[in-house]
Amino acid sequence: MDRSRLEAFSDGVFAVAITLLAFNLAVRGPGHGVDLVHLLRGPRFLWSLFAYLVSFFTIGIIWVNHHVLIRSIAMVDRTLLFLNLVLLLFVVLIPFATATVASYLPAGSAEPWNADVAMAVYSGVFLGMSVGFGAIFEWSLHGGHRLQPLPPEAHWPARLRFVGGGVVYVVAIAVSLLNAIAGFVIIALVAVYYILERTPSAPADPGDAGETGTSG
Amino acid sequence: MDRSRLEAFSDGVFAVAITLLAFNLAVRGPGHGVDLVHLLRGPRFLWSLFAYLVSFFTIGIIWVNHHVLIRSIAMVDRTLLFLNLVLLLFVVLIPFATATVASYLPAGSAEPWNADVAMAVYSGVFLGMSVGFGAIFEWSLHGGHRLQPLPPEAHWPARLRFVGGGVVYVVAIAVSLLNAIAGFVIIALVAVYYILERTPSAPADPGDAGETGTSG
Amino acid sequence: MDRSRLEAFSDGVFAVAITLLAFNLAVRGPGHGVDLVHLLRGPRFLWSLFAYLVSFFTIGIIWVNHHVLIRSIAMVDRTLLFLNLVLLLFVVLIPFATATVASYLPAGSAEPWNADVAMAVYSGVFLGMSVGFGAIFEWSLHGGHRLQPLPPEAHWPARLRFVGGGVVYVVAIAVSLLNAIAGFVIIALVAVYYILERTPSAPADPGDAGETGTSG
Amino acid sequence: MDRSRLEAFSDGVFAVAITLLAFNLAVRGPGHGVDLVHLLRGPRFLWSLFAYLVSFFTIGIIWVNHHVLIRSIAMVDRTLLFLNLVLLLFVVLIPFATATVASYLPAGSAEPWNADVAMAVYSGVFLGMSVGFGAIFEWSLHGGHRLQPLPPEAHWPARLRFVGGGVVYVVAIAVSLLNAIAGFVIIALVAVYYILERTPSAPADPGDAGETGTSG
Repeated sequence: MDRSRLEAFSDGVFAVAITLLAFNLAVRGPGHGVDLVHLLRGPRFLWSLFAYLVSFFTIGIIWVNHHVLIRSIAMVDRTLLFLNLVLLLFVVLIPFATATVASYLPAGSAEPWNADVAMAVYSGVFLGMSVGFGAIFEWSLHGGHRLQPLPPEAHWPARLRFVGGGVVYVVAIAVSLLNAIAGFVIIALVAVYYILERTPSAPADPGDAGETGTSG
Repeated sequence: MDRSRLEAFSDGVFAVAITLLAFNLAVRGPGHGVDLVHLLRGPRFLWSLFAYLVSFFTIGIIWVNHHVLIRSIAMVDRTLLFLNLVLLLFVVLIPFATATVASYLPAGSAEPWNADVAMAVYSGVFLGMSVGFGAIFEWSLHGGHRLQPLPPEAHWPARLRFVGGGVVYVVAIAVSLLNAIAGFVIIALVAVYYILERTPSAPADPGDAGETGTSG
Repeated sequence: MDRSRLEAFSDGVFAVAITLLAFNLAVRGPGHGVDLVHLLRGPRFLWSLFAYLVSFFTIGIIWVNHHVLIRSIAMVDRTLLFLNLVLLLFVVLIPFATATVASYLPAGSAEPWNADVAMAVYSGVFLGMSVGFGAIFEWSLHGGHRLQPLPPEAHWPARLRFVGGGVVYVVAIAVSLLNAIAGFVIIALVAVYYILERTPSAPADPGDAGETGTSG
Repeated sequence: MDRSRLEAFSDGVFAVAITLLAFNLAVRGPGHGVDLVHLLRGPRFLWSLFAYLVSFFTIGIIWVNHHVLIRSIAMVDRTLLFLNLVLLLFVVLIPFATATVASYLPAGSAEPWNADVAMAVYSGVFLGMSVGFGAIFEWSLHGGHRLQPLPPEAHWPARLRFVGGGVVYVVAIAVSLLNAIAGFVIIALVAVYYILERTPSAPADPGDAGETGTSG
């Protein structure tokens, strides 16, 4: 089994999920007594926009790292297909989690406990995605699954990077339950970090730097 | 006609259908007097989540087996294109059937007959998908359609596996009409079975084991 | 410019459009006093199902013929890209036209003039699609655009087939304005005709038989 | 990293975004006392149709030019992936902006200030897309990123064409804030211009003519 159809299916899911994100931005039509400019400046639209931006770039980062990881793989077996489905399971949940955050965070001053739960769900979906990606990476380390095997002494540093990335999302869940906006800032900073850190220095070694970005 | 565009179109349909599944998870926004945590723990959301998981992995399994089956085919003719459309016809119905189940099963205690019908529709769509897949497999057995022809003595064992898979969905329809939740458990077990059974031992013989998984 | 990305983009549009068709099937949730089995037997759902089936197979037939036609083309230029966009413009309209028919035909006994207009819109979208496809075919006949040029004496027979296909949709528009159901039957018969006629005898000559099916 | 998966992902986003555009065309069902033919002739539907046509062909033009630009690139690095994400970020916003315009322009006589803001948002999304595309083009000029490097003396003419294209969208924003319909006409003329100007004379030099069309 070659990698091309695994990539084609995954790309399709990434592309549909990233395009559906913009659904949350829809604003009410005219005739309700509120001017469009006020709707666009209001907390409902601004939080939708913030959540759209963070989710968009997070899916984009996953997609980039997914590409790098799959390209490093020598063979596709059913375990990889299943692990990839687990990753996509959480990718597909991102539009739902984004919509929930965009809906509950603007009301955070009135119902802060609901905003906290919404933000914890959002962080939890990203954690699940991170775990799914880490599982594919772990699978790739063993059984000759990589085209260029990673030396054993490089396994633990790579794993620590993954655990580090996943830990940020665990922290984001905990922080979200105390303060939704603080949780959102953490998630947004993770996306900004990976864009800034990864972009200028295109890493040549996918095992050491390229893929670990996916866990963030 | 080569297989690549058949695969690309099918992958697109699989990818869109699997991503649309998460639409059913949408929860009400704030301001209705019900806390988000109660919404997420309520039967409406939990049944949506269960149905999402089962439909997601079932589409995933079909996609994997579709890949294996199409890869074993020597030529693409119009009959195959039509049979593939019949398979996709039922794949496209899965988000609709999932939404119906997610909508009616939570109200099963108040209106059990409606939950039973919803679950029978859900099982029926999976049966249709199984029949569509079986038809492609049957087509592949004849006329030199396989790259590596299956010996005639292997036809009936393979067909029995298919019939076996389809029979489970017929049973699920019948059980659903008596008890929706029991029907749902059968459908969920089929998905779990194929994930557990197929994943560890990546089958090398697509005619004997790999494809028959699609009928489940 | 190669054909692969033209095909990939077109396949994506076909796949999304065909998957969105099932949105019209959505039924109301519980608690409205109407049993699900009555909803599923009612004219609203049945017309949605009929329209889904006809639109699904019509898009499927277009997709098959699009594949055959694009494969016969020697080069991709900007004129082809524009004509292909015109074809896709109407493909993207099919879910809208299907939803309109599914919504207005069940009320045909109360408001027959609205059902007639809905059906004329539906036929008109298919006519536009047929014209878009015919334009690509006409473009392919000239300037060395085909890998295997069609002899000039074969141009008019091929065009007549196209005109014949488009004329059926013109007739369907006219009939729809008199009787919506009669118009729907014509559109459905066109789809059935192409499935039955094309499937058994996989035509070897794409210029004479394969592509002309797209105009129907 | 090869270009194929960058193209596959981008094509998927383009295809989903262009297909979602037709969602805005949905008309109300029967039983509301307004005939379908009046709905289809009314300003609400006609503006939806105009906005659909302009957005459809604009996305189509971007897709064509994206293809030409990516094909001219020698290597894919993380900077390109990020810039491509920025472009797609605005492509994904087009259905939202189209829906906003389709919703507010018909009410332009009653609430002209809202129509102006909607049209400015629409123009702003196209400007963002143009800037994203220009950034990819600028990136391609340096560091040996092109398969066939553009001579330095050709850089400024090419850039001026890009700036010219972007300036039209800046003008459209300014005009929109004064008169929404005039802003819409500008955006529509840009699409018509690129279709007419580019189509007949398929430009052979992607650096000089082909790509600059994307900034329009």
